[in-house]
Formats: sequence, C-alpha cells, structure tokens
Amino acid sequence: MKKIGIVGATGYTGVELLRILASHSGVSVHKVTSRAHAGTRIDAMFPNLRGHYDIEFSDPNAGGLAECDLVFFATPNGIAMKHTAELLAQGVKVIDFSADYRIKDVDVWSQWYGMEHASPDLIEEAVYGLPEINRERIQHARLVANPGCYPTAVSLGMLPLLENKLINANNIIADCKSGASGAGRGAAVATLLAEVSDNFKAYGVSGHRHLPEISQTLSLVANKPVELTFVPHLLPMIRGIHATIYVETTNDQSQQDLQALFEERYVQEVFVDVMPIGSHPETRSVKSSNLCRIAVHRLSRHRVVVLSVIDNLVKGAAGQAVQNMNLMLDIAEENALQTPALLP
Amino acid sequence: MKKIGIVGATGYTGVELLRILASHSGVSVHKVTSRAHAGTRIDAMFPNLRGHYDIEFSDPNAGGLAECDLVFFATPNGIAMKHTAELLAQGVKVIDFSADYRIKDVDVWSQWYGMEHASPDLIEEAVYGLPEINRERIQHARLVANPGCYPTAVSLGMLPLLENKLINANNIIADCKSGASGAGRGAAVATLLAEVSDNFKAYGVSGHRHLPEISQTLSLVANKPVELTFVPHLLPMIRGIHATIYVETTNDQSQQDLQALFEERYVQEVFVDVMPIGSHPETRSVKSSNLCRIAVHRLSRHRVVVLSVIDNLVKGAAGQAVQNMNLMLDIAEENALQTPALLP
Amino acid sequence: MKKIGIVGATGYTGVELLRILASHSGVSVHKVTSRAHAGTRIDAMFPNLRGHYDIEFSDPNAGGLAECDLVFFATPNGIAMKHTAELLAQGVKVIDFSADYRIKDVDVWSQWYGMEHASPDLIEEAVYGLPEINRERIQHARLVANPGCYPTAVSLGMLPLLENKLINANNIIADCKSGASGAGRGAAVATLLAEVSDNFKAYGVSGHRHLPEISQTLSLVANKPVELTFVPHLLPMIRGIHATIYVETTNDQSQQDLQALFEERYVQEVFVDVMPIGSHPETRSVKSSNLCRIAVHRLSRHRVVVLSVIDNLVKGAAGQAVQNMNLMLDIAEENALQTPALLP
Amino acid sequence: MKKIGIVGATGYTGVELLRILASHSGVSVHKVTSRAHAGTRIDAMFPNLRGHYDIEFSDPNAGGLAECDLVFFATPNGIAMKHTAELLAQGVKVIDFSADYRIKDVDVWSQWYGMEHASPDLIEEAVYGLPEINRERIQHARLVANPGCYPTAVSLGMLPLLENKLINANNIIADCKSGASGAGRGAAVATLLAEVSDNFKAYGVSGHRHLPEISQTLSLVANKPVELTFVPHLLPMIRGIHATIYVETTNDQSQQDLQALFEERYVQEVFVDVMPIGSHPETRSVKSSNLCRIAVHRLSRHRVVVLSVIDNLVKGAAGQAVQNMNLMLDIAEENALQTPALLP
Repeated sequence: MKKIGIVGATGYTGVELLRILASHSGVSVHKVTSRAHAGTRIDAMFPNLRGHYDIEFSDPNAGGLAECDLVFFATPNGIAMKHTAELLAQGVKVIDFSADYRIKDVDVWSQWYGMEHASPDLIEEAVYGLPEINRERIQHARLVANPGCYPTAVSLGMLPLLENKLINANNIIADCKSGASGAGRGAAVATLLAEVSDNFKAYGVSGHRHLPEISQTLSLVANKPVELTFVPHLLPMIRGIHATIYVETTNDQSQQDLQALFEERYVQEVFVDVMPIGSHPETRSVKSSNLCRIAVHRLSRHRVVVLSVIDNLVKGAAGQAVQNMNLMLDIAEENALQTPALLP
Repeated sequence: MKKIGIVGATGYTGVELLRILASHSGVSVHKVTSRAHAGTRIDAMFPNLRGHYDIEFSDPNAGGLAECDLVFFATPNGIAMKHTAELLAQGVKVIDFSADYRIKDVDVWSQWYGMEHASPDLIEEAVYGLPEINRERIQHARLVANPGCYPTAVSLGMLPLLENKLINANNIIADCKSGASGAGRGAAVATLLAEVSDNFKAYGVSGHRHLPEISQTLSLVANKPVELTFVPHLLPMIRGIHATIYVETTNDQSQQDLQALFEERYVQEVFVDVMPIGSHPETRSVKSSNLCRIAVHRLSRHRVVVLSVIDNLVKGAAGQAVQNMNLMLDIAEENALQTPALLP
Repeated sequence: MKKIGIVGATGYTGVELLRILASHSGVSVHKVTSRAHAGTRIDAMFPNLRGHYDIEFSDPNAGGLAECDLVFFATPNGIAMKHTAELLAQGVKVIDFSADYRIKDVDVWSQWYGMEHASPDLIEEAVYGLPEINRERIQHARLVANPGCYPTAVSLGMLPLLENKLINANNIIADCKSGASGAGRGAAVATLLAEVSDNFKAYGVSGHRHLPEISQTLSLVANKPVELTFVPHLLPMIRGIHATIYVETTNDQSQQDLQALFEERYVQEVFVDVMPIGSHPETRSVKSSNLCRIAVHRLSRHRVVVLSVIDNLVKGAAGQAVQNMNLMLDIAEENALQTPALLP
Repeated sequence: MKKIGIVGATGYTGVELLRILASHSGVSVHKVTSRAHAGTRIDAMFPNLRGHYDIEFSDPNAGGLAECDLVFFATPNGIAMKHTAELLAQGVKVIDFSADYRIKDVDVWSQWYGMEHASPDLIEEAVYGLPEINRERIQHARLVANPGCYPTAVSLGMLPLLENKLINANNIIADCKSGASGAGRGAAVATLLAEVSDNFKAYGVSGHRHLPEISQTLSLVANKPVELTFVPHLLPMIRGIHATIYVETTNDQSQQDLQALFEERYVQEVFVDVMPIGSHPETRSVKSSNLCRIAVHRLSRHRVVVLSVIDNLVKGAAGQAVQNMNLMLDIAEENALQTPALLP
C-alpha cells in the first residue's frame, strides 16, 4: 500500500478526498494535517467517516508527510507553493488542489490571485492535471496542478471542437452554474442556507479567477489565443456544475458528424460520457461520481451548444485528484472511482 | 368595486392571482371556476387564502362570468381561444395567461402549439400585455395576451439596446433559468421534489415555445428580424427566473453610457428596476413582487451581458396580469403590487 | 405618522421588520442603526427594499432614537438591556426582540444566557408580548419583551388545553422543527447551505434557551409548574416552525369537543387560525404571514397531538413585534399584517 | 456469480438497488422487469447507471426470473403476494420490498392495506428482514419481508431499551421525519418540488400503515403489547429519515449506563453505529450508506430521548435488502455496502 498525506483536509474537497480514498485498494491515508484542528479525530469532524478512519488531524509541523509517497494539498491558494519544493526534494510527489501551479504565466497568476508566487521555478514543471489532455505527462509528473471545477467542465466540453478547429475561437461563451459547495466550507454570510436557498444569481461577471485558467487550456488546445466570455452563477444546491457553452461553428458539420466526433474523441476515456443525441445531462447523473457527461446540440447553421456536467467536488476536485494520483503511482486509473452516481 | 372572474384558478398562477387580488382595493373576485373542483372552497385547496375569500370554485357552465367587468383565463393553452369571443360580446374584458393570443402569425402559433386556432380573428385585436412597450394600447384593449415568463424577463432586458440599435440583432443568446413552479401544478414525475431538487439541467434545447414569442417581441422592437439562441434550464427552487443575455455591441458605448441608457429608458417604469453598475440581481430580490431587476455589464469591446430577474409567478404571470387589469380598468397601475419582495 | 427606530436591523428579523413596516399606514421608519454598517443604505444591503426606503444605517451613538415614538431592538441578547432604561426615560416605548426581558426570574435568565443582567429592575415591568394572553397589558406597556419563535408556536398550541386543565401538566412533549433563518444571519459553518440543505438533525437536546421561556408561559397559564420535554430540530429550508405537541389528557373530551374548545378560544384572535378537524397545517400556509395555524388531533383515550405552525420571522419575531407595536401605539392590530401567505 | 432478478425496478428503491448491486462482487443482475417499460434500456431511464448495466427492462411475463437465485420485488403493495409462491416453487428465493409479508396477522394487514391477501399461507414462513433481530432466520429463509423505512429507524432505536425492559411500554412516542423520496416516484401533485420544497408538515396523524408494523416488532421484542404514538412528517429534501423517540424509563440508569447498554447491544452490528454521548446524528451522515446512527439522551429522571437516522432508500429499503440477500446467499454481509456516506 502506498502512503498518502493530506494537508488541510477540513474543507469539502478534503472530506470528499477522504471519502473516495476509503474505497481505494492501493493506498492508505497516513497523515492528515490541520493546524486548527490538530488532535481532533477526523471522524469527529466528519461523521460519515466513522468506521472508515482511525486517525486524528495532526499539526503540519509535526512531521510525517515526508514518509508519504504522495501528498495532496487541499488548502486555500498560497499554501502549497510554500511547501511543495521541500516535499519534492524528499522524494514525495505532490498534487495541489489550489490554483498555485495552474497558470503558466506567473504575472497573470499574481494579478488574479493578488500575491507574489513563492516558488515560481516549479510552475513550469507542474503538469496541469486534466488526464484527458495530459495523461502521459501526468504519469511521469512529480507535481500536478489539479484543475479548477469550472475549467474541467468547460474544457472537456470544448476539446473536440477546438482540436479539430471547427469553431470561431473568438466567440466562445460559457454560461456556468455551480452548487454552493464550490464556495468552500468557510463561515460566510453569502453561502448561508438562508441566503442561497430558493435563490439564484450570477457572480463575478466582471472577472472570475477561473477565466485565465480556462483560456489558457483552450488556447493551448486550439493552438492560438481564444476569446472567452465566462459567467458563473450560484445554484441553490450542494453539488454539481453545469456548463452551457455557446460556440459559432465555421463549417457545416451535421448533428451526426458532431456526435461522432465527440464519441470518437472520448471513446477511450472512462470518465467522459458522451450522451445520446438530444440529451440534456443532469447534474445529479454525476453526483458523487468522477464522470463528466456531455451533450452536443447543433441548433442552426452557425450555432452549436454544448452541455457539460460534473460533480464539482469529484471530477471538479477530489475525484480528478485521485485519478491523477492513480496515474502518478502507476495504479489502475479507475481505482476507487467506479461507483455509480447517487440518484435520486 | 369592479367584478372579476377567474377561469381555472387551481394552478400556481391562479392561486398567485388570488393572493395578489386579496390586497386590491378596487376589485373583488366574483367568480372562480374549475370544472374538476366545482363546489370546493378555494381556501380548502389553498389554505394560505383562509380568511381572505369566502367562495367556492364553480362550474364554468354555471354562469356568472358575464356579470364580471373582467375575466382572467389562468388555463392551459387552447381554452381561452374557445371562450373569449362570447365574453367580449357580453362586454367583458379578457386577460389570457396562456399563449393563445400571443403570437401574431397564426401558422407559427399552430406549429409550436400543435393545434388549430379556434378564434384566429381575435389575434390581431389582442394586445400583447407588456406594459413597458404597450401601455397605451393595453389601456384601451378589450383583450390582452399576458406574456410568458421567459419572454418578459428577456424582453425587458433587451429593450434599451434594441430600441437604440446598439447591438448585432443576429447574435443574441439568452441563457435562462427558471424555478420549478414554471412547470405548473400538474402531477408529473419530472417535477417531483426527488427529481428536481439538488439537481440542475437544461431542457428544450432544440426548441422551446417561448422562442417564437421572444423573437416576435424583439423583432418588433428592433424593427427587423432578430436571431435568438434561447436555452432554458430548470432550477431546484420554486420561484424565480434569471436571464443571462449575451449580446455583441456594434458601437463603443461605455459602461456608464449603457447604465445611463437603461436608467433613462426605465425611469418612469415602476416595475423595472435598473440596479447600480456592477450588480448581480438575485431572484430572491423580486420573490413575490412584480419587479424586474436588471443589471447591464460591459465585458469587452464587443461583449455586453445583461442580467434580468423576475418572479415567474408575478411579473412573469399573475402580477403582470394585475398590472394589465389595472390599466384596462383605469385603476392605479401599482394597486395591489406594492409590497416588497420576501427576503430571505 | 408615528416615528419608529430600529436598533440593529442587519439580521433576518431586522429586514423582515423593514419589509412589514413598508406596508404600514400609521408609522414611518425614522432611524435604523448599525454600528458596523453606518453609512450604508439599507437597500444596498437588502435589495428587496429598493424603492421602499431612502435611508442609511446610522451609528447608534449618532442620536435620533430619542425622537422616536417606539424603538425596536433587533439585536443579539445582552444589548437591549443596556439601552432600554435611557429610552424609556426619554418617553420612547421599546419592543425587544431578544430574550433580555422575557424571563421573570433573573437567576434563571443569567444561568441560561450566561451573563449578568444589566437592568434587572425593568424585568418586572416588561410585558411578555404574546397578545393572545396579554393584549390589555401590552396596550398599556412601555416595554414589551417580544416572545421567541418556538415559545410562540408551542404556547399558542397549548393555551386552550392548559387554561381548561384538560391535560397532565407533567407530561408535555414539544417536538419542534425550525427553518435555518432562525439561526440568524451571522457567518457560521453550521448554517451554510452545504451543511444544512438536504439534511435534518436535532440540536440542543440536552437543553435549549427556549425551554425556560416556554415553561414559564405554560406554567403561568396552567397556574402550576409544568414539566416540558422540548427537542428542537433544524429544517433544510429558510422559514417556518412546526411544533408537534404530545399531551396526555385527563378527561374524556371527544375530538369534536376539543375542536370546539380551540375554535372558541381563538374566535376573536385574527392571527390564530384553528384548522378543520383532520388537518395537517403546513408551514408554507403561513409563510410571510403573521398567522399561527393549529390543528388538534385526538389519537386515543389519553393521547392528544397538537400541530402548530408559524413563520418564525413573522409571528415568531417581526410580525408579532408589529402586532405589539400596533397595540402599544393604539393602531388597528392588523395594520401591515393582512396579506395572505406566499404559496407556493 | 449468483443471478439476481428485480421485479419493478422503475421506482426509487429499484434504481437504488441497481446502484448498490453495481458494486457487488458476488452477484450479477440477470433480469429486470417492468410491464410499462419493457424494451427500454435501464440506463436510458436512470442515466447514473450508464456504463454499469447493459440490459433492458423486460416484460415480467417474458420469463427469466426462474433462472435466478434470488428475486427482489420492488413493487407496490399487492404484487409480490401474487407471484412469490410460484418463484419459491421453482427454487428461487424472494425478498419483498413491499408490505405484503410484513404483518403476521392477516386481518390487521387487510384492514390497513385495504385488500385481501393473495397468499396468506406464506405469511408465517416469511422472515421479517431486520438482521439485527433475525439474522439467523434470514440466513435460512426462502422468503424475506424487507422492513419499512420508519419501522427500521424506530425499531433499531428501541431494541436495547425494550429487550432490557427499561421503559414503560405503554408510553412510547415516535416523532418521525422522512425525505420525499419515501413517497415514491409516482406522478403526484403532493410531492412536486413546488409543493414540498421550503415546506414542512405532518401527515397521517390519525393512522399510518407503518404503525402496526412498528408495533408488531416492538411488541415481539418487549414480549408484550406496546402502545405507540407515531406521527410521520414530510421533509423538504430527498433522502433521509430521522426518528425522535420519547420514552419513559422505569429505572434509574444513568446516561453512562444507557450509552454502555446501546454500545454493547450493537457492538457486533456493522450497520448500527451508536454515536458518542451528547451527539445529534444528522441524516446526511448516512446518506447513500446502509448505516443506522443512534444517540441516546437521558433528559431527566423519567425521560429518555433516542435519536435514530437512516437513509430511507438504503437501510430503509434497498441496502437492507442487499444485506438480507447477502445473508440468504451466504455472502459476506457487508458486500457492496461499505462505502462511506456522501457528505456534504
């Protein structure tokens, strides 16, 4: 069994990572750190884990991470960048849930995240952990930057079209909707049930941190700069991201052509499901699972709409991280990620 | 007190109409009909009305509607078109909640609604009941076609831009989201709590009945055909519509210019609220109220996003109907429509 | 128009009070204070109030409250008790939403609320603001302690039985459920949507602050000590309290007798609605309204169950406070409190 | 691999059974029947199952069930009783999700379920499938009556107290709350999102079908008739049952004694989790899992409250059925039932 460490597992991506790893047959959780909650049993904080783990949060300075084969950082932005170098030097592989190593242009990163980068030299080495485009590099990586939730949903919906240069790269609109768990487990008025429930709104219209991340991926895939309009919205529910992507096609591929294109692109991908023609993927069809389900709709001569859904905590965070871990540790990619979504 | 009749008040728009009229100072509800529930007290079906009404549903054939000054049809499509002519002949004004008289081209109507029109001769006379564009005609109308919920939210968001020819009319995208009450009060698996709650999806991507209605309004306002992409989605909540509208501007108006344009357009409109620059209107900010709140965001040189929210049962149905009734009966337009939204 | 002040209106009971007062014909809101938000327009914080108020939060020390006829304290426990004496001395009447003046025994109060009382001399003068038992005293009061939400729902459900000595006072069980708005608008992990939604639990089983308040009311009404088991639960929704009260009857009154007893007790009460025999009152039937709806069910020879629902923010807080204000200022008791509940 | 058949898998318990069995290592689903949906792929109806099953619903008359080792009836009441005898005669074991074989007194059954029993001779043979009291008999059973959801939650909460005769058996109150999935997947107005969401109410106060089932179990355990007051309520959420059980103790056991008693009773039970003293189990802590979590609270000299939570679709239906199947087929009891609950 490979040994796993988790830094900062008191948030929603942390507990989700622990939930998934509880069913993993090839790794065991060795250390879970939390400065604020050192000494607390993890199942006292998360009762769903009772019977699955017999450990406590430990202080990050108390050691033990160096003994791990791989460490996850389930921490806010700005933490992993300070500790990754030391772990790598000790031979420990790292997967970072935060945005610290996602953006290749460090100036762009600093501008959006409002801080100086603490380890800019590692940015280039870091592999962007979207297996559907970077599988081989992830297999050999020491450091993986786990993608954001919106970027995962949008990028997977766009790959076939951009790779085949079928759309106008200057006119892409991603209207995205996320459940409230995406805002994290911090105490905040804005995500109280009495604020979010029975309510819907856009946010960050003037600019959201996932915009440069999505643009970077899409531009790489398209091999030229893309122009993206990205508007996120907050859903009155816990889990799930739905991306509705509007593109302008530059050719005359039929609905059948597009369907075949998507199916062919993802035929080998176990975690991308191209739905039948005419489908409307529901977020609940991927709840608790690592799948991205996609439908492509040709509406008119120039207009194509792609619908893409993921569970923001799984394929949008902890599940994709486990998928990356499996690749990095030479474990079967689906290990711990095969249970069907919870419906209803 | 003017006498009011309501045909088919057993659905959500019906009970909402009754709720609003309970606070009206100039009209009283004289007849409420329901074939299926004749003889049932209306407050036995809708306990929120206990103490406000002392009447029963009566059979539509039992008479009494002719004594009314105005009759609302809160019925499914295809009912009002069979009964309106007789009421008009008896001097009764009519407001129809359904789509029977909304579409001016009867062939387009038949194609989308799948039936022959029973009174095509009345279509031209019917006034589309969006007071913000047709106030004067509504004041003199005998027959008003009350707009759909999505069309109200989208049209109000687009008026200032189209009237001033500031956008490319061939590239309008309306990504719309609606609460489940929009699907009505009929027994159906698709809108059970266990299906809709904690879930989000698009529907009708290949074509929704509100598309021709919105296109008709926008084309009239723009004075030329518009090309609209319209994708509706189902929200896991009861009330509220949020339209996120993406347009391509053809000029260089600044954010400030656009804000001024919207504010000026709606300065006299008591039920349209242009929010401050940078706002993200929330559906709960209009819950139970007749308001449409709008924010306009310039994102880049060519891209403008408009956010528009209404309560689908109020400004999107019963409230707008009462606003139209007030205009038709020469009552103050705000009567019964002035209470603040319910928040939280 | 009488002048009204509100101290601390940035929580849910505060915005609800402002919403209700916007429809009041006899008072106007003169001052709204908030230390943290002085200078902010109240409609910037609560957009549902846009168009209804043109004022800002002011600093509580900036004066103006003394000019009011009546001041509401919508503050946490421990604030009103420090400022009430001064206002009373200036001739200003006071309604306190908090628990500061609810408990007559100051030692019991200190024990449950964990602080010394700052104005114990005012406790006796303070009238417990449940109009259904204290109407006349409220009319002449300078200081009213507005009841808690659970105590209102439970007390109204028990009055007819206790006043008529029909039950065993040593065996009363109140199983209560509340929407999340009851926990207030403070930033907290425990009431995040992602914690509370799609979830249900009891809390405070070993002792909740409303226990001594309910016991005090019931004991006064019964004219002897009662023994109450009170278990509160947290509902995955915003508004509403449902009390399911289990009592042991000491006589042989039939279902019809009990129904008549309840109806007679509340026949003059405009805000208590005794539902027909066999009813199950729903919380949504009182959402946004000041009503308490009650059903009484005789299950067996000794067992009676009472179901009682209120909107915790209205009859459980701001609405009852306005009802009390109307009584204190000699205004019609229903003023601003007559609109039907919002359903659906 | 043992062969499994499922009759009527188009409801929530059916899809949940399929979800759980997808992870089972010892059985495979051979036949899934549905009269109404014969010919439809099961993953077309339930997209969460895409990639996990490659079969269609077949007509129940088309054969194939006799080839199975075990057949589940996930059908409404009144179906299994007509088909079980034939299957048993063919050597097929049967687990019935409905109430057909739960009540030993056939007259009581007929009275509550409003029909004649079609196979009363099988009632005695049928084993009530609560492994915590009937494990050995289940292991040898041909026919298991899978318990109802409320009965499971209440019975598990009461076993230690009744088995040890620590309470007054004539004064048990079970105040129970269930998510809306408990009402099934049939089209109905009463369980529409717009009816149930943001709402709470009791139902069936005068008598619910689970009352005789719970009473039967508790009486058997207590070895004398018990008197139970049972009030179910409908929660605005999908999954989860919470039972709050109020009992009167007849001895002076301390909180520590009671805790020890519960822990000892369930120490060998992998699907019953006795929480630490002072806990408030949350329904989400068992969502998607087969666990029942229990807390026992001594409130006063005579009053004890037990809190018991399950997922109504898992330990309250499909999960318990799989647990029973494992016992009947001599498979490890936890097979397919070991993943942690989904939180948040």
